[in-house]
Amino acid sequence: MKVVIIGASGYSGAELASLVAKHPQLTLAGCYVSEQSLDKGKLLSDLYPEHLGLLDSPLLPLSESAFSDIDNTADFVCLCTDHKVSVDLAPRFLSMGKKVFDLSGGYRLSSNEDYQTYYGFEHQHTELLSEAAYGLVEWNSEAIAKAKLVAVAGCYPTAALNALKPLQQAGLLADQTIIINAVSGVTGAGRKASVGTHFCEVSLAPYGLFNHRHSPEIEQHLGHKVLFTPHLGNFPRGILETIYVQLKADVTPEQVTQAYQVLVDEPLIRLLGRKIPSIKGVAKQPFVDIAWQQQGCQLIVMAAIDNLLKGAAGQALQCINLAMGIPHSTGLKG
Amino acid sequence: MKVVIIGASGYSGAELASLVAKHPQLTLAGCYVSEQSLDKGKLLSDLYPEHLGLLDSPLLPLSESAFSDIDNTADFVCLCTDHKVSVDLAPRFLSMGKKVFDLSGGYRLSSNEDYQTYYGFEHQHTELLSEAAYGLVEWNSEAIAKAKLVAVAGCYPTAALNALKPLQQAGLLADQTIIINAVSGVTGAGRKASVGTHFCEVSLAPYGLFNHRHSPEIEQHLGHKVLFTPHLGNFPRGILETIYVQLKADVTPEQVTQAYQVLVDEPLIRLLGRKIPSIKGVAKQPFVDIAWQQQGCQLIVMAAIDNLLKGAAGQALQCINLAMGIPHSTGLKG
Amino acid sequence: MKVVIIGASGYSGAELASLVAKHPQLTLAGCYVSEQSLDKGKLLSDLYPEHLGLLDSPLLPLSESAFSDIDNTADFVCLCTDHKVSVDLAPRFLSMGKKVFDLSGGYRLSSNEDYQTYYGFEHQHTELLSEAAYGLVEWNSEAIAKAKLVAVAGCYPTAALNALKPLQQAGLLADQTIIINAVSGVTGAGRKASVGTHFCEVSLAPYGLFNHRHSPEIEQHLGHKVLFTPHLGNFPRGILETIYVQLKADVTPEQVTQAYQVLVDEPLIRLLGRKIPSIKGVAKQPFVDIAWQQQGCQLIVMAAIDNLLKGAAGQALQCINLAMGIPHSTGLKG
Amino acid sequence: MKVVIIGASGYSGAELASLVAKHPQLTLAGCYVSEQSLDKGKLLSDLYPEHLGLLDSPLLPLSESAFSDIDNTADFVCLCTDHKVSVDLAPRFLSMGKKVFDLSGGYRLSSNEDYQTYYGFEHQHTELLSEAAYGLVEWNSEAIAKAKLVAVAGCYPTAALNALKPLQQAGLLADQTIIINAVSGVTGAGRKASVGTHFCEVSLAPYGLFNHRHSPEIEQHLGHKVLFTPHLGNFPRGILETIYVQLKADVTPEQVTQAYQVLVDEPLIRLLGRKIPSIKGVAKQPFVDIAWQQQGCQLIVMAAIDNLLKGAAGQALQCINLAMGIPHSTGLKG
Repeated sequence: MKVVIIGASGYSGAELASLVAKHPQLTLAGCYVSEQSLDKGKLLSDLYPEHLGLLDSPLLPLSESAFSDIDNTADFVCLCTDHKVSVDLAPRFLSMGKKVFDLSGGYRLSSNEDYQTYYGFEHQHTELLSEAAYGLVEWNSEAIAKAKLVAVAGCYPTAALNALKPLQQAGLLADQTIIINAVSGVTGAGRKASVGTHFCEVSLAPYGLFNHRHSPEIEQHLGHKVLFTPHLGNFPRGILETIYVQLKADVTPEQVTQAYQVLVDEPLIRLLGRKIPSIKGVAKQPFVDIAWQQQGCQLIVMAAIDNLLKGAAGQALQCINLAMGIPHSTGLKG
Repeated sequence: MKVVIIGASGYSGAELASLVAKHPQLTLAGCYVSEQSLDKGKLLSDLYPEHLGLLDSPLLPLSESAFSDIDNTADFVCLCTDHKVSVDLAPRFLSMGKKVFDLSGGYRLSSNEDYQTYYGFEHQHTELLSEAAYGLVEWNSEAIAKAKLVAVAGCYPTAALNALKPLQQAGLLADQTIIINAVSGVTGAGRKASVGTHFCEVSLAPYGLFNHRHSPEIEQHLGHKVLFTPHLGNFPRGILETIYVQLKADVTPEQVTQAYQVLVDEPLIRLLGRKIPSIKGVAKQPFVDIAWQQQGCQLIVMAAIDNLLKGAAGQALQCINLAMGIPHSTGLKG
Repeated sequence: MKVVIIGASGYSGAELASLVAKHPQLTLAGCYVSEQSLDKGKLLSDLYPEHLGLLDSPLLPLSESAFSDIDNTADFVCLCTDHKVSVDLAPRFLSMGKKVFDLSGGYRLSSNEDYQTYYGFEHQHTELLSEAAYGLVEWNSEAIAKAKLVAVAGCYPTAALNALKPLQQAGLLADQTIIINAVSGVTGAGRKASVGTHFCEVSLAPYGLFNHRHSPEIEQHLGHKVLFTPHLGNFPRGILETIYVQLKADVTPEQVTQAYQVLVDEPLIRLLGRKIPSIKGVAKQPFVDIAWQQQGCQLIVMAAIDNLLKGAAGQALQCINLAMGIPHSTGLKG
Repeated sequence: MKVVIIGASGYSGAELASLVAKHPQLTLAGCYVSEQSLDKGKLLSDLYPEHLGLLDSPLLPLSESAFSDIDNTADFVCLCTDHKVSVDLAPRFLSMGKKVFDLSGGYRLSSNEDYQTYYGFEHQHTELLSEAAYGLVEWNSEAIAKAKLVAVAGCYPTAALNALKPLQQAGLLADQTIIINAVSGVTGAGRKASVGTHFCEVSLAPYGLFNHRHSPEIEQHLGHKVLFTPHLGNFPRGILETIYVQLKADVTPEQVTQAYQVLVDEPLIRLLGRKIPSIKGVAKQPFVDIAWQQQGCQLIVMAAIDNLLKGAAGQALQCINLAMGIPHSTGLKG
């Protein structure tokens, strides 16, 4: 099957390109950037020297003729573009009959109001919001396998939802706001030059208090109120979330452990139990690491992922695998 | 006045030595290490090349003759030693009539049970626990100025207490556990060689869940229940705490702002209001940076310090300044 | 074929364990540490959380019974041990008829005097020094394929020799000392706890001036005099060498380019020409990146590798592949 | 005396602003940025949160009225601007009778051809090139004290020249190209947003081979041929140079040691002898650390500075101190 990547010059796009190029059943059919991009015509391996020898094809401009090339060649189209660009591009590729995997937030929420509030734009294709399958692989694989449009889950939500849905499903959560303290590596801020991502400016600091767009995404797909506070940390890849959960009265450690068994056979979930996860343990790995410790009704859940793999390109590849009807960890775990 | 530092080879001890050496009214009269220390006889500037030219005197072994040298020369004795060592040493120097500034946790808690639970030892000098002044400068300056023994506040508690005491004093805190998510730089783990502080092993990860010894210290000196979760982060110096506070019903932003005015004239407190603090803003600085944002009854308070300065040596120097009756920021802020 | 790793808890050993575990034609038959090791009995994935799910078997003590287990089960024995330990262990495993791959420097030099000078010990098995094949894969594959004992090339020499042997073979080197300025990541210093590898102590600095043990290794296998100066840099993995070469009079850029064509078909060598290599381009990659720029008779050659892959475990695996008669990049490049 | 800084938003400018603000005999009279700068109107402490409380005045646009304000108020004008901007601004401020300290390279070289070759522009004020004093404090203090225009020495040249001039003056250098392998922290690349300084893109790598503009600066002020190869390293501040020097035949270690005695009384030079300098030892310090080791005629000299202090703002302040007739280390060393 042939895969085309739009927005391939960014961190998620390039990571996905490398995964597709190494995948046993996929062919990387084209890597595109916007017509205005300064990276147009460069080799992907010029931007990512680690991929020299693997990704040596030029970045193509997404011109009108490119659309017809994609129409002729691609089976799957992956959008690694800005939210608003994804909203516009998805219907166009869907109308060609392509399966579309959108790594942006353009189709993750169900309500136009949330797009206005958290993304700052009026959604132009609200009719697709209910059709898009939410690409959280371990929890929605049937819908993903059948969907024409997959809204691959966000990075922070992927960690949070895998950590919390077992508890929610088991009915263990007290009716109280869950506090999610999250720290992401700098690739999470994108590759675009900015003072905020300058080597000498990055420092551990919170951002987006009370209004980050992953907040409604987590709440919608969890069905529970959360207070989500992201931080930018001084490391390139990875997300660590420390989650403060109030359990219902009398919930035992055994019940908590039992709740997490729903994930025990998942190849890309690692249940650490009382061991402590870390960024180091998941960087460049396709996994979600989940651990927890309890004291009375207070539960601390810790979840870690690589934001570019399980939090973006890795999970997108899992979704593509589902669409092909092959094991979802193909190409991710040996 | 002459200052002697016991345990000068560690990060806090060396930092304090450099502050004393540059202080306009203090003389660094001796830097000691344990008799067994491998650093014995080395220059402090051999261990800390940045201090070459400033700290070129040899580290002296704390032998019996050293005690009588200290008796003869020192006015102030600073203990930068392990908790248990400090517990033993403090009475000995107090009996010489010295003022003792203990940077360990040996005299910060009031109950022997807490020492058993959180420090793992039976306190041998409980009679001194009530005499020791808690060295949290902005809140306890009178007691510090008069005390013979000062238990300089811990690093995490210094950030947390300065961030929370204004709210507590103003009566704004709801009766609910405050969640303190804290990240410390690696100097916080000490200079001793260990795999955990190896350059290639350090990674953002939580530790000490539910049982860190700074938890009772914060609760005792705040008078409010907290859930404190420290993390080790991949940077050398600094602490960032993101604190989740439930306010009483109907507390207004004006009331919160008003509460923090109690600190407005403090030279080493910087109230950022809605600005976001970061590790970068406080590393190698003597300040506590405090900021907050509110949504309804939910308040997020952010506090940042340098763990070696305001969190250890800087605050110890403030205490010494108070003991001399000079402005407490002398030697710290130009 | 079954592989046993002695010294598996160190960085090179664990890296090799992960490569073997994922290799299509190898089985990881045992991971050993010394009987005194504190890591004895731990899971390799406890030490290396990134390998959870891949390397979950316990580290076994290299007791006497372990030797007979290895005798019964292993085809290949890999020594990731200290130089002196390797010198002692190699003959023992050779006498069992095993093929031995030694990642230490114990069998890389030809003269006992050099061992005295640079390693500080008297070599106890000098008779094996001439039998050991030097494990520099791209230059010695025939000997490696046949050898019973392979002395896998050192990390710095692997970069330097691949960068310089093309010029030497083509007869382009002037009769003048070549200056090799090299910087290695901290994994190069090993995983053992030490103040020198403490997160807060690591800093770019030279070491081993005029007397590093890789100096005679490079000279012996290059046949040319070099001045080699290593530095420790503040990154975990990777080596960058900036090499200052004096060419014979009138050597043209075309001749230099031509000389490097000897490596053009090598799957794990990437000739960058005038592009600039970097640590980022090779970290976690199995390649040697080589680039050069010339001005008159002055040539600057730049070479970069991952010290744990091409500089240790990766090249060891190449040697094992050669011993099996399969392409040497198997299991390293998709 | 009143100091005005043009280009205060960059790393050197802000560092200089903080030094001036804390200096006992200087007043910071104005911090300017170009009229087009996006930082116009911001507080310097908004950009540099570490300086909150010290540098809270707004960045002023360098409009026409600003020039007359400067004319009325300033004694010293410091240019922390791009090379070409400095070339244009210096005469304007000189014509007001101000003493000008230029931290750019605009007036460091003596020949217009070198500006064309290495800076890419035609110098518009060549008449000033011979009037400008080269601001290498330890070697040119008399000229600096008297000059109206000081071309503060470049960062790399400051380290290299202090390391090599003692040998050159003593006549110990053989007639052979000196090789300078240098690594700089990322502040050396400026604060402007660029992909090259993105946190995730920075990696140890060489740049500017054979054509860096500090090459002619070093050669001109040393009077000896050098091959200078800079690298960008993954740390924020500091420069380490490893310098390979061929000595004349029969030069003894005593002669080398003797040669460096010319610097022994300099307060901001630290002669380490055989100790090894490091970035850690000089970061945020005003010093040049110099060390050397010899083997026969081969000498390796190591020099380290903080590129923003001794390599820029610190040395500029030394020059200002000289202009005031006070000890040149005032405000830099306690």
